[in-house]
Amino acid sequence: MLRQNDPREISPQGDGLLKGIAVDPVIFGFHENQLKVLIIEHTNTGLYALPGGYIQEAEDLDEAAKRILTMRTGLGDVYLEQFHVFGKHNRTDPEVVKEILLGQGFTPSEDHWSLKRFISVGYYALVDYTKTKLTTDPTTGGCDWYDFDKIPPLIFDHRFIIEKALNTLRDNLDQRLIGFNLLPAIFTMGELHTLYETILGKKLLSPNFQRKMLGLGILERIEKKKTGKAHKSPYLYRFKSGGQLEQD
Amino acid sequence: MLRQNDPREISPQGDGLLKGIAVDPVIFGFHENQLKVLIIEHTNTGLYALPGGYIQEAEDLDEAAKRILTMRTGLGDVYLEQFHVFGKHNRTDPEVVKEILLGQGFTPSEDHWSLKRFISVGYYALVDYTKTKLTTDPTTGGCDWYDFDKIPPLIFDHRFIIEKALNTLRDNLDQRLIGFNLLPAIFTMGELHTLYETILGKKLLSPNFQRKMLGLGILERIEKKKTGKAHKSPYLYRFKSGGQLEQD
Repeated sequence: MLRQNDPREISPQGDGLLKGIAVDPVIFGFHENQLKVLIIEHTNTGLYALPGGYIQEAEDLDEAAKRILTMRTGLGDVYLEQFHVFGKHNRTDPEVVKEILLGQGFTPSEDHWSLKRFISVGYYALVDYTKTKLTTDPTTGGCDWYDFDKIPPLIFDHRFIIEKALNTLRDNLDQRLIGFNLLPAIFTMGELHTLYETILGKKLLSPNFQRKMLGLGILERIEKKKTGKAHKSPYLYRFKSGGQLEQD
Repeated sequence: MLRQNDPREISPQGDGLLKGIAVDPVIFGFHENQLKVLIIEHTNTGLYALPGGYIQEAEDLDEAAKRILTMRTGLGDVYLEQFHVFGKHNRTDPEVVKEILLGQGFTPSEDHWSLKRFISVGYYALVDYTKTKLTTDPTTGGCDWYDFDKIPPLIFDHRFIIEKALNTLRDNLDQRLIGFNLLPAIFTMGELHTLYETILGKKLLSPNFQRKMLGLGILERIEKKKTGKAHKSPYLYRFKSGGQLEQD
């Protein structure tokens, strides 16, 4: 398979790849009451970015997004959904791309394909933080979770892409119940409550929230969480067997 | 300006255009209780399609969508929103593209840029049918409204794009009140009711619907429709002055 992140393996014309189109996945996780986003650092540059990549000529767009996500982060099968295309004509900057390639020890020609205009297809992914084990390919300097309010400055319009992804997540949270993808298989009502409050950025009344969630008929109460104080321990929940989360 | 729909004005390499990316607008109208979609016929081919086009190198994606819509149909400033990218690697067919170009009297070389793979960015537009005056550019054979259930067979995945657009419209109808863009400036509650029923494809209880719409606080009742039978005439409504419809 084309190790397309290494510029030495691609011709200056970008043969074998779709020209001018990139995929940028926004990967959300949730841990210790914090919404987190996965950010990479381009090798030897101090430049932070979404874990993006390119589409191969004989590859469906959605397949490319999955492959890029796995290649960049080591994450396997996760909830991944396209949400918007970013198409401002000046959204990328050839000087920044040059810097990234130089960081990999590669000096591009002036008409190198990767210095031209790129449209980016934004995807967002929701992953169970407790199950993620991050790995990176050799051209990625680092790959780490950042609290949403501590994301470093990013290249191009990547910050804007993240904000648009969060807005989409907010819009879809009630309608499609996708937020559960961010939780472990077993969770307390309090954890679910905090997740919703964190994503929506506002307080939700506890009794109302619990009534609404239980009213959906998709949760099964299984046992009390072991905390040592049985009478105060919260119940644990999981999805009813056969319960399906919408995957579009 | 590049009259980019005439293949004779573009080099075989597609210079000046973004390669491999098209824009396909799904334009909805509403008339005589029918949801309608604007379909073009490619000159001398009998091939029906969405009124699509290409993006210029120095043009924002959203600007390209507006320009293409105007060029193909004559429609000016309308509600237009991106909704999905269609990226199956085999979604277009070079033989069909050849047929379209031959219909314009142009024989493409085997490696002509337009015969390669294309990703399409789908936009949907909502227009006031009563205000539309359709015109076409010379490479478009015809441009007409079709009732949703009478759309002819279309090239590529254009039928699928239309269905995805309708699903998006349904999802957004309540949340964003965009359906009003399909109505004239003044309308009856019955017309609004029928519009919603037609888009959603189901019956809505009349008193509930009216209560909900009036409860939004965005409608102003102005006068009775002149029908000759004053006591049975329905009231006319319009948006309150200063009322804004969301435009994303």
